[in-house]
Formats: sequence, C-alpha cells, structure tokens
Amino acid sequence: MSELAHGTLAGLAEIDDTGRDARRGGYSRHLWQNADLELRAWFAERAGRLGLGVETDRNGNLWAWWGEPGPDAVVTGSHLDSVPGGGAYDGPLGVVSALEAVARLQASGFTPSRPCAVLVFAEEEGSRFGIACLGSRLLTGGIDADRARALVDADGITLADSARRAGLEPAHLGADPNALARIGLFIELHVEQGRGLVDLGRPVAVASSILAHGRWRLTVTGQGNHAGATPMPGRRDPLVAAARAIVAVQDAALNHPGSRATVGRLEVVPGGTNVIASSVHAWLDARAPSDSETRALVAGIEEAAIAAVAVNGCSVAVTEESWTGTVTFDPDLVGRFRAVLGGSRVPALPTGAGHDAGVLAASVPSAMLFVRNPTGVSHSPEEFAEVADCVAGIDALETLLRSLL
Amino acid sequence: MSELAHGTLAGLAEIDDTGRDARRGGYSRHLWQNADLELRAWFAERAGRLGLGVETDRNGNLWAWWGEPGPDAVVTGSHLDSVPGGGAYDGPLGVVSALEAVARLQASGFTPSRPCAVLVFAEEEGSRFGIACLGSRLLTGGIDADRARALVDADGITLADSARRAGLEPAHLGADPNALARIGLFIELHVEQGRGLVDLGRPVAVASSILAHGRWRLTVTGQGNHAGATPMPGRRDPLVAAARAIVAVQDAALNHPGSRATVGRLEVVPGGTNVIASSVHAWLDARAPSDSETRALVAGIEEAAIAAVAVNGCSVAVTEESWTGTVTFDPDLVGRFRAVLGGSRVPALPTGAGHDAGVLAASVPSAMLFVRNPTGVSHSPEEFAEVADCVAGIDALETLLRSLL
Repeated sequence: MSELAHGTLAGLAEIDDTGRDARRGGYSRHLWQNADLELRAWFAERAGRLGLGVETDRNGNLWAWWGEPGPDAVVTGSHLDSVPGGGAYDGPLGVVSALEAVARLQASGFTPSRPCAVLVFAEEEGSRFGIACLGSRLLTGGIDADRARALVDADGITLADSARRAGLEPAHLGADPNALARIGLFIELHVEQGRGLVDLGRPVAVASSILAHGRWRLTVTGQGNHAGATPMPGRRDPLVAAARAIVAVQDAALNHPGSRATVGRLEVVPGGTNVIASSVHAWLDARAPSDSETRALVAGIEEAAIAAVAVNGCSVAVTEESWTGTVTFDPDLVGRFRAVLGGSRVPALPTGAGHDAGVLAASVPSAMLFVRNPTGVSHSPEEFAEVADCVAGIDALETLLRSLL
Repeated sequence: MSELAHGTLAGLAEIDDTGRDARRGGYSRHLWQNADLELRAWFAERAGRLGLGVETDRNGNLWAWWGEPGPDAVVTGSHLDSVPGGGAYDGPLGVVSALEAVARLQASGFTPSRPCAVLVFAEEEGSRFGIACLGSRLLTGGIDADRARALVDADGITLADSARRAGLEPAHLGADPNALARIGLFIELHVEQGRGLVDLGRPVAVASSILAHGRWRLTVTGQGNHAGATPMPGRRDPLVAAARAIVAVQDAALNHPGSRATVGRLEVVPGGTNVIASSVHAWLDARAPSDSETRALVAGIEEAAIAAVAVNGCSVAVTEESWTGTVTFDPDLVGRFRAVLGGSRVPALPTGAGHDAGVLAASVPSAMLFVRNPTGVSHSPEEFAEVADCVAGIDALETLLRSLL
C-alpha cells in the first residue's frame, strides 16, 4: 500500500501495519483486542486533527462530530474490525473515505447547515462474538441486550466482561434511542464484494438491496474414541457426518438459484489427530433474495443435514444465531443519490453482503456507496481496490455530503 | 474418582483435578504446559516418597530409580500427557501402577538384584507438537533431532524454545544412547483401548502387536472469498472439498478390512463464519495390520482425496508427519510373561493404539500389559476402568517385576 502513503488515502496507509495476521495473511482485527484498540485510538487522533469531537456510545460505537451533535444529522462511516485474515478495504475504506470527505469540505470552506458525524461501528464482522453488525444491532435494539451480554468469544469471555474491560458499563449495553435519534440519514461507503461494477465497467455504485441472511450453528454429535483402536464398522464419527452435511449445504444452495450457503468455520471437539471426535460445531451462513427463500433454504439444509449425519449414526441440532431480513434501500433515496452522482453512469447494485447500513435501514433512512473491486474477492487478503476507484468513491461521498449538508 | 481417594489407586485420585478441560470435558495435559508441569512435580514428589532418585533426561523424559541407575535395568512406566479432552487412565494408569508395584515390593522387604526404574515419557500423544511418542522417539533416535527441534505448536512456539523454557538444553535433544543402554527390559501397563478383554471376560492381557500407523497432513487449497457476496457456481471452496475427502478417507478404510483411517483434527483458514475458506488442513491418522497395507491404504486415500477435492476445483497436498511400522512384541517374552501371570487366563492381544513401548521395542526388549476397559472407549472423557481391574493390573505388574528383579 506504499502508493497510498501520501495523498487522499493516507489513512489506509497509516493503519497498514495494524493487526496483520502472519499465519492467515491479511488482517485480524477483532473487537477490543489489541489491533482494534489501536485502530480506535488512531481514529480518535485522525478525527481530532479535523477538529471533530469524538465520543464512544454505550455500545462501543465511535462517533466523531463535525460541530455540535444534534438531531437530523447526516452520518457517514463504516467499521474498522475485520474477519480473521481479512482484507485492507472491507470497513476501513468507508471510514477513511468519510474522514477524507469531511476534510475536503472543511478545506473548501464549506459550512454545514445540519449536524454531521463520522461513525465507526463495533464488531461489524461478528468475528469475536459471532453476531455480525453487533454494534448497529445493539444501537437499534436489533438484538436483546441480555442475550448480547451473554455472548462469549473463543476464550469463553463474555461480551459483558470484555465491554467492562474496554471501559463500558455492561448494564448500559443495548438499544440507545437517544443516540439513534440523532441520525437523520446514514451513508456507508464500502468496497464492493462482488463483480457487479467490474462487469459494468463503472467505479462507483449505489446499493439497491441486501440479501436476507443469517447464521446457524449445526452441532453434530457422535461417539468420541481412539482413532487407532476403534474398528471402522460401528463408528459414529461426527466429523465424517459433518463432512456429509457440508457437502449437502453446498448442494442445497446450488439447487436454490440466487442463494448462497457456506460453512467457513468449524470446531472439532476435542480436535486431536489420534482421536475420533465426539462432536463438531459447524457454522452455516445462508442468504437468499427474500426472507421466505432464505427460510426455505435453511429448512432444506436442516432436513438434508439430518439425513446426512444419520448415515454415520450421528445427530445434529440446528440453532439460529442471527437473522436479518431482506433490506431494500429506499428507492426514492437511491434514485436521488444516483441523480446527484451522475444518473445512469452510477448503477444501483444489490449485494449479498450484510452491512451496518442494512441494519440501520429499519430505523433511519440509509444508503450505501460501493467502490469497484477488480477481482470481486473479499474477506481475503487478496481483496483490492484501485486508488483511482477509491478516489472516485470519496468524490461521490463528498458530492453527496455537500448536497445534503 | 472418589472411590480411589484411598488405597491402591490413590495416585490417580491425587491428579484427578490436574488439567481438567472445562470446554471439552476430560483432561488436556500437554507437554510443558501448566498441567504437565504440575504432573511432573507430582511424579517427582510421589517417587521421592518411595526413596526413588528422580532425573530428567535430555529429552524431558522422567526417570525414577530404585537404587543406583545401571545397565540391564528393568524399567516400567508410561506417560502423563493426554490428548485434548482425554480420559483419566490413558498414560497415568501405567505410571501410578508402576509406582504402586514398586511400593508393594518395598513394603514386602523385597531387594532387587537388578537396577529398576519408573519411566515417564514426554509428549506420548503428540498433542502439542504433532508427533506421537516424541519422548521415546527422541531417546531412541527414532526422529531426527533437527527436525524435532523445529516442530511448532499451535502458537508457533518451537520444540527447541519450549524445551529451553522447561530448563533443557535444546542442542542436547535427540538420541541418548547412554540413557537407552541402561534399559534391559521395558514394561508398559496401559488401559486397553478397545474391547478385547471385555469380549474375553478377562481383566488383564499381554500385548502381542501394534498396527503400523502414521500421521499425514492434507492441505486443501481453494479460493477464499466473501460467503454472502460470492455466487455458488464457480466457487472453489476448500472446506467442501475437504469434506468430500474426509468421506473418502472413511470409505477407503472400510474397504481395507482391519485398517483404520481417521480425520480428528481440522484447521479451516481463515475460519470466519462469513468467509469462504482459502485453505483447510486436515490431519489423517491411518493404521493397518502391516506396513505395506498401511502404505497402500494411504496411497489409496491420497488418490481418492485428489479426485474428491477436484470436484470443487481445489488441490490437495499430502505430507507425512510421522510413521511407525508394525510392532510385533517378542513372542518368547510374551509367552514367558503369560506363563508367569497365569497362562491361558492371560490372553495375548493386538492393539491399534501406538505406545512408547512400541517405539522402544525396536531398540530394547519391550512388553505391555493391558487392563480391561468396559466400554472400549478411549481418548475421551468416557474412558474408564474398574478399580478391581486396575488392581489386577498392578498385581500382574508386581508379579512380573518380582520375577525379573
């Protein structure tokens, strides 16, 4: 990222070394762990340089106010956390672009007529506590506070305990209507996670919709035993059973056009090379164009998984961990934004990726800008965006803010 | 284990709380980590109470000498480390029984005519550094010292570094002919890891042979990406590919009667719920009655895995991590031991489980005693042996020592 060391995207260069994951490649930046704490400090320092007033809300989201906080604010931002081994752009590009757009407006002598803030959401990827968009769900009341407090990370630490260690009051986690009521409009700029803009030959799009999506935990139970001393006939090996279920997950999604179903995280218990597992946890990420299609997909997967694991004498329990219905961004807003940005040269694109803007859309007017991703690859160290396209994204965000403020 | 708090098996009760694994159940006692260090201190204290002289050899194995160390010694023992979430008996039963047999001989006023030692091997399960029977392999030169020093645990710590932290000189790791030359005969008592004794209705057996066995790492490589934004067609998901390979592993072993093949440990990279993995490491444990059958089994698995992962556009690399040929315990020794212990009432049984006695057998006369396991389950919290059977094991070990010393 040396080409970014100066100029518009210097912010990305400044955090280029923060949270690098030597084992997986890319970045692992998880809520309130070292890299995330460094990024929060970096954001506060960066926003401070622009004269913005930085506050942490009671759910750990960071707000940087240009002028006085107030109602009907135009708020823009994204997140700084990552998936394990994620790319450099997913999240940070939206934060850096928001700060840069504000800096440009300030440099031009522009005076906003409405309150304005840059917002950084906590735990957007759900990489530490399992629930994606946790910060925006808490803010909007989209997740029960008691349930959230009891979420545990891989080390068994609860969200409540880790919030306390981060300086928050766990009892205050949850819906924050006063903070939410300040948002008149939320705009999230994000690297595209697909090839929509590449295929259209355009640098920037406005989001039209987000697939319905959710996470389910499949727990497959069998009989643990010694890998060497246990004859093959009669084994009830839950990893072989889970393997059949994982193949069934893919087959189910292939049979539902437009849907996606993925197992990307697996925990084998106990996980010894010379041990037949006793149980396996597999996390399912499933998405489809409508709520009912997604529900039908998951119901089909559950049925197929039960049949698949039965081949190995195992059982499976399916637990829903999160759910987000289809988000259709306000068509009027999408149309107005496209008109301001150049009409047909700025396409409206759907996405399969969840975003805080999608969670907020149920409570306040929300919109998204996408920046072209030349390979479409995301959630991977290979995620990329050309500097020129990132600059086009900042141009678009600045134009929108100027028209709204 | 309250019934063991007093009497013959008090040693097991004393370590009942050491290294419990709250998440997996059972015990996780791994080389030079806290639980293992506590168990080493416990062993030194226990042996000291019997007046035995405790030494650590240059590979971290613990020797407790009854009288002066010397050549042609009768040595008995096992290991104290465990698989992740293992049972209470696998390893510790042999150590506790050895100490108890020595205590009984001492209490009866018996004076040995040969040197005698209780031996605790390091990292028998290979749970930290991946190589089973690491302590006995190092002692006998069964693993290259440079290769061993470079082994890394899950946190990237090398064996050399962790040995240094444990107070050993890493340069001295490896074949230790002086220590080895002291062993005239090695006897390992172990809980049976199968149902041989249950089926025969007997409490104790002498081991006849150990299946050839080894460990291989299968690394499946695909294309990481976003789980929600990436359409199903064209995905190269290495976890789906690995799932097909895991099913193929089981099928291959079912087609080779008498063989076993297991995947019990899996690492998904990067391992995020909303991330299509970029690679998957699967560890294969494979065993068969002869060396050539095991080699043929693994060759078949490799071929099947290549075909299986190709379905998902992925590739797989297979790396051998360890190998142990078939062990046939000296039939004369087996016959003599059975005669001393009661002839046909003490069966000779093969096992599929690897043991330090099997590694030593290539260098010095070695033998094993098995104690009945009512369910056959091992490498699991459910592993169990009745007190009466454990006592019968100690009786047998005492009888053998008395006849040999």
